[in-house]
Amino acid sequence: MTETVAAPPKTAGLEGVVVADSEISYVDGQAGRLVYRGYSIEELAERSSFEETTNLLLDGELPDGRELREFQSELAAQRELDGETLEAVRRFPPAADPMSALRTGVSLLGLTDPDRGDEGREATRRKGIRLIARIPTLVAAFDRARRGLEPLAPHGELGHAANFLYMLRGSEPDPEDARVLDVCLVLHAEHGMNASTFAARVTTATLSDIHSAITSAVGTLKGPLHGGANEAVMKMLREIDRRGVEPAAHIREMLAAGSKVMGFGHRVYKTMDPRAPILRGFSRKLGERTGDDRWYRMSEEILTTMQREKGIDPNVDFFSASTYHALGIPADLFTPIFAIARISGWVAHVEAQYANNRLIRPRARYVGKRDLRYVPVGERG
Amino acid sequence: MTETVAAPPKTAGLEGVVVADSEISYVDGQAGRLVYRGYSIEELAERSSFEETTNLLLDGELPDGRELREFQSELAAQRELDGETLEAVRRFPPAADPMSALRTGVSLLGLTDPDRGDEGREATRRKGIRLIARIPTLVAAFDRARRGLEPLAPHGELGHAANFLYMLRGSEPDPEDARVLDVCLVLHAEHGMNASTFAARVTTATLSDIHSAITSAVGTLKGPLHGGANEAVMKMLREIDRRGVEPAAHIREMLAAGSKVMGFGHRVYKTMDPRAPILRGFSRKLGERTGDDRWYRMSEEILTTMQREKGIDPNVDFFSASTYHALGIPADLFTPIFAIARISGWVAHVEAQYANNRLIRPRARYVGKRDLRYVPVGERG
Repeated sequence: MTETVAAPPKTAGLEGVVVADSEISYVDGQAGRLVYRGYSIEELAERSSFEETTNLLLDGELPDGRELREFQSELAAQRELDGETLEAVRRFPPAADPMSALRTGVSLLGLTDPDRGDEGREATRRKGIRLIARIPTLVAAFDRARRGLEPLAPHGELGHAANFLYMLRGSEPDPEDARVLDVCLVLHAEHGMNASTFAARVTTATLSDIHSAITSAVGTLKGPLHGGANEAVMKMLREIDRRGVEPAAHIREMLAAGSKVMGFGHRVYKTMDPRAPILRGFSRKLGERTGDDRWYRMSEEILTTMQREKGIDPNVDFFSASTYHALGIPADLFTPIFAIARISGWVAHVEAQYANNRLIRPRARYVGKRDLRYVPVGERG
Repeated sequence: MTETVAAPPKTAGLEGVVVADSEISYVDGQAGRLVYRGYSIEELAERSSFEETTNLLLDGELPDGRELREFQSELAAQRELDGETLEAVRRFPPAADPMSALRTGVSLLGLTDPDRGDEGREATRRKGIRLIARIPTLVAAFDRARRGLEPLAPHGELGHAANFLYMLRGSEPDPEDARVLDVCLVLHAEHGMNASTFAARVTTATLSDIHSAITSAVGTLKGPLHGGANEAVMKMLREIDRRGVEPAAHIREMLAAGSKVMGFGHRVYKTMDPRAPILRGFSRKLGERTGDDRWYRMSEEILTTMQREKGIDPNVDFFSASTYHALGIPADLFTPIFAIARISGWVAHVEAQYANNRLIRPRARYVGKRDLRYVPVGERG
């Protein structure tokens, strides 16, 4: 196997290359600001809900009371999986990782969707709404099936975040828990041209369908340099706990060994990720409320060490880990929860790509062999 | 729903933007040349096989006799689907489109692969080989299941192309048919940073796994601006046949209506796609051999019209349609056959991306609203 050993070209990561104009969100990396459709993430986190934020991302404006109720009802009505998909998910190997299961589940939904084969604007919107509504059901159904439990039908009276916790746990969640998860979903719903959103747009740009685009996005989010980072943070916290060492000492060891400390730094933010302080508050409060604040305290010590040693700030993934853990969610569902949120941004970007499409097809620079002549196999060597 | 109506930014299609150095293939758009690892596509089409070409693409050199036999044996030994995946494919809705079925099948293979969870170099190569071996089995199994037939176990004595035709038809193919398909697979095996390969690399660049990457690639290939074009060409030929009009008249009507004529033009080639004349020869010879040359003749008349009216040359998709049709393959399997071939290039690019990785994360330019203040829903108006 040959390998390219030279440094990749300067544009290999497409840093700073503009692939679209967007009205969906504004990520101001210098100022550490995040804005959805003109509204700051701090205000949406404090005052909005996942359903309202999703409505905002898709339609470009905050809904009025009637519009919001209709949108909430539509989402709630679309939560249930069709029988074929549910049965397929129940048959997934219990040892499968949940992001691979979700990727497969989203792809399966494309086989049974009533609008399959219609890539028009209205059909794509309907398919997008179904995906937003059903991704939590896919995640919870697989989690229960792998634990040997019966998947639960969605609870039509509960909000989006509360219903997900219900489908996972089998009982109605404490409203405070549900609100924390709801805000986490708002915080993760959209983030410009991140890698999974870009993957969805690359797929869409061949005029493929939205199920293909979202399947690409889920598989891309899975990687530890993207959505997979929140699970990696939890693994690190557990490792520190297991070793019984000081968090600061563990981090210094990692840095000395040249290991990447997950949950820190960001391609776009050159200062604090504005989502991090909000999650930090949740991590702290949940620690106090549950009486188990060691994951929060550990996180704080890691943060202090990273800022002192490397001058790098935490990103959205860092305090997500201790927050989700305090909500009783298993670590390998942290990245699926990211998908449960980001689907709103993905759908908005798929629609925007269709509305103003151009095939996304860059170039490779050839640095290989030239002008070889084929020699029959018997004459080689 | 708001829409961006301004033209997309100049870099929206990433035209000419170099995202990687590559030793895998050289697409010379000005000269109309295609080279895999230093060997011209004309020579490989005439003298190589899909297995040998795949070995070349993966290892960078033509194998010697022993290496080639080992590689062929390894591929043949890995063709069979595991029982869980086969059973899941049999349960897919018969009305599903085959590319959506293949996308789901590839994703399912990631749930049962013995190397799942290991993204190291050797495990990735083993997973890649399994995918190259099993994608034809997935396509044939779904096609037989939807026709109410029992999927066939792979035929270990036949070559890669011949075995696919066997699994589809249920009988050993004529060696001439098998050789035509074999060359078609060589021609489609690799093509630089095309959209599906780029999608695979965007997914890989988050350090996600090869099943996620190939699932993204299949979903991206599905679009009519990429792999879906060969099926679209066949639909056009059928439409002309059904209408009973002169092909030239039909094309002039399409052009007058501003419709895109599929199978012509290419982002990179500014002259004849070097794969087109080879496929043109197959289309002609198969027409003569089967005694039904109307699809070939129709294609020639369309080509003449397009060159005269628009000065555009055919691409790889154009004569693929009449060639595959003459082999008795249903039109909705044309794009899956593209995937059966391109998987070799995809695997080579996934390996190259891992070997020299950088997160692929471009930017969007925000052109939306700013500085809006959140108003509670009851006060909106």
